[in-house]
Amino acid sequence: MLILTAQPNILSFALGLPAHEMFPSGKFAQACSEALAIDPRALQYGPPFQPLKRHVVKLMALRGVQCSEEQVFLTAGAQQAMNLLARLLLDPGGSILIEELTYNGFQQIVEPYHPRILTVSTCPETGMDVAAVEAILASGIRPALIYSVTDGHNPMGTSMSLEKRRRLVMVAREYHVPIIEDDAYGFLHYEDNLLPPLRAFDDEVVFYVGSFSKILAPALRVGWIIAPEPLIVKLSIVKEASDIDTSTFSQRAISAYLDAGHLPDHIDGLRAEYRFRRDAMDSSLRECFAGNARWIKPKSGLFMWVELTEPINTTEFMRLSVQQEQVAFIPGNAFSVQDVMLASNCMRLNFSNNPVNRIKDGIERLARVLDGARRV
Amino acid sequence: MLILTAQPNILSFALGLPAHEMFPSGKFAQACSEALAIDPRALQYGPPFQPLKRHVVKLMALRGVQCSEEQVFLTAGAQQAMNLLARLLLDPGGSILIEELTYNGFQQIVEPYHPRILTVSTCPETGMDVAAVEAILASGIRPALIYSVTDGHNPMGTSMSLEKRRRLVMVAREYHVPIIEDDAYGFLHYEDNLLPPLRAFDDEVVFYVGSFSKILAPALRVGWIIAPEPLIVKLSIVKEASDIDTSTFSQRAISAYLDAGHLPDHIDGLRAEYRFRRDAMDSSLRECFAGNARWIKPKSGLFMWVELTEPINTTEFMRLSVQQEQVAFIPGNAFSVQDVMLASNCMRLNFSNNPVNRIKDGIERLARVLDGARRV
Repeated sequence: MLILTAQPNILSFALGLPAHEMFPSGKFAQACSEALAIDPRALQYGPPFQPLKRHVVKLMALRGVQCSEEQVFLTAGAQQAMNLLARLLLDPGGSILIEELTYNGFQQIVEPYHPRILTVSTCPETGMDVAAVEAILASGIRPALIYSVTDGHNPMGTSMSLEKRRRLVMVAREYHVPIIEDDAYGFLHYEDNLLPPLRAFDDEVVFYVGSFSKILAPALRVGWIIAPEPLIVKLSIVKEASDIDTSTFSQRAISAYLDAGHLPDHIDGLRAEYRFRRDAMDSSLRECFAGNARWIKPKSGLFMWVELTEPINTTEFMRLSVQQEQVAFIPGNAFSVQDVMLASNCMRLNFSNNPVNRIKDGIERLARVLDGARRV
Repeated sequence: MLILTAQPNILSFALGLPAHEMFPSGKFAQACSEALAIDPRALQYGPPFQPLKRHVVKLMALRGVQCSEEQVFLTAGAQQAMNLLARLLLDPGGSILIEELTYNGFQQIVEPYHPRILTVSTCPETGMDVAAVEAILASGIRPALIYSVTDGHNPMGTSMSLEKRRRLVMVAREYHVPIIEDDAYGFLHYEDNLLPPLRAFDDEVVFYVGSFSKILAPALRVGWIIAPEPLIVKLSIVKEASDIDTSTFSQRAISAYLDAGHLPDHIDGLRAEYRFRRDAMDSSLRECFAGNARWIKPKSGLFMWVELTEPINTTEFMRLSVQQEQVAFIPGNAFSVQDVMLASNCMRLNFSNNPVNRIKDGIERLARVLDGARRV
């Protein structure tokens, strides 16, 4: 089905792709040329590029996080970052605590460890059920890690409430359980009342994961971990075993792009455009799905989570919508960790990868499919 | 000690670095600009880039290997390639068959599986003890994989004899044991009588691993696997869990560089220069170490393996040589899989990363240290 959604004739709300027409290709080409002209070692194996670590520290300050260069570990994107953390934190057969609807890429990461999986629910408005987390830990269970997408939750789009952020960190500290905070989307926020990530409340149990994939370009394959300094050496060892090093060239090219000061304006541009697209999707949904669906306008990220009010199976609905109207999305239960029927009437809709006219068109087409399905 | 060897004042024969002054930085910058100008999707997530697969098929033909695009799986370098293969082939607690002196990066790859490790010795002239491999398999033991660096062996520089290549493949087929063939160095050969890799003799049990790191640039982080087609889908799944995809940008930039037809001349240039450096190291060793060491001039790769005739511990010798003459190398026993005293009088010397005058200077300095040590 995913291969189907990648066909050129498909209007896809399925994947979490940034808008490729917004990539700063020209300026980045210049940064590449500079990096290559300055030093042929830009193409060599090499240790992490210190100037890029300095840039990450400054970026983190924009997210309200104080950290030092010594706490920055550069990776080949957020996915690798989480793989390396899982490798250090999780033993085979250990247990993990995650939300019952969560990013399936994280489920794939832990799968080789065959962990015992403990789940809690997610409130669409305030995020992870932190009281349930506390109850689990208070019962004596000690998972190897808690996984949290605090802002722009994947798949639900939720940003966790301030109260829950504080409480989650407090609980994790009390029971000494590390949190992997996946902040791939945190820089893409669309409202004024931005909350800081969990890492802003704690520098011991929260292992923060960030990425240039969504704010600059996925093809650079550069992300980072903010972790306590003693963990950095251990990360270096598992990283080397995994893929030797993170592309020296990517690191230097990104650094050259950041040196030129382009990133803040670029992120502002992304926020403006994605806000516009999110609002367009929200308006279209209100026009076409009023009474037939519930959703919350996300404050951050790339996804709108839509729950159909009737018990319509969205896996079947997706099949119809691809066949009849060439529109794709991801059915909700694809994100379910254990219960295959959970969220089976939900859809994850991406709003970053299509211009506004296509978003409107796509939502109208989805409504037509729903209308037809209900009449049958 | 490795951090020490990376100090700028150290003349290092330690790491397996290509010559950075030979990187085609200008032409590659042009290829980057082209890739970015043609299509902004060069910075997007994306499936493997088909034109690059076509180039890999052509490259493999130069190595004497016939394969199809459908058998090519692109990776973030050879190290990741071997990680993905280990993930598919090796279960926790399974066994593997490797040489008792081998690339320690492979040992790091299998470590999380806590495998039972079976070893065979390596003849400096003809390579892996294939008769011992056969004896192990004939005894009923079925390792999950055999690991072979067929050409330019790391650390010993050996190229396996034709007879052993044929025999190893025959034995692996007979007992249905897959071989991971690590051919990171195979394109860098310095003699006329080039032998084809194991993959040329078999397309079922040999899983070939290649890389652009040594023939173009390590910082691109692109390598490849040649595997039976049914394995490619499985590799895609573990690859996605590992780091989503291989940099679309790197893939397209390399492809643009290859489209321009630069690579064959570039590889010829590397061969000529590295042959020159290898010969210089060989001459210097003959001048300075005659009677005190044994070595074989390698036909491929980046390493010269030198065995001191006296039982001098090279870990201690390396400490002295760094202190007294600021020359570094890797002591032989660093590559020993099990026996910490194995090859304790050996050194791995890299000849690709220093110009000829520094190679001569470094070997002379090493001889001075040896001379001093023997007088004490």
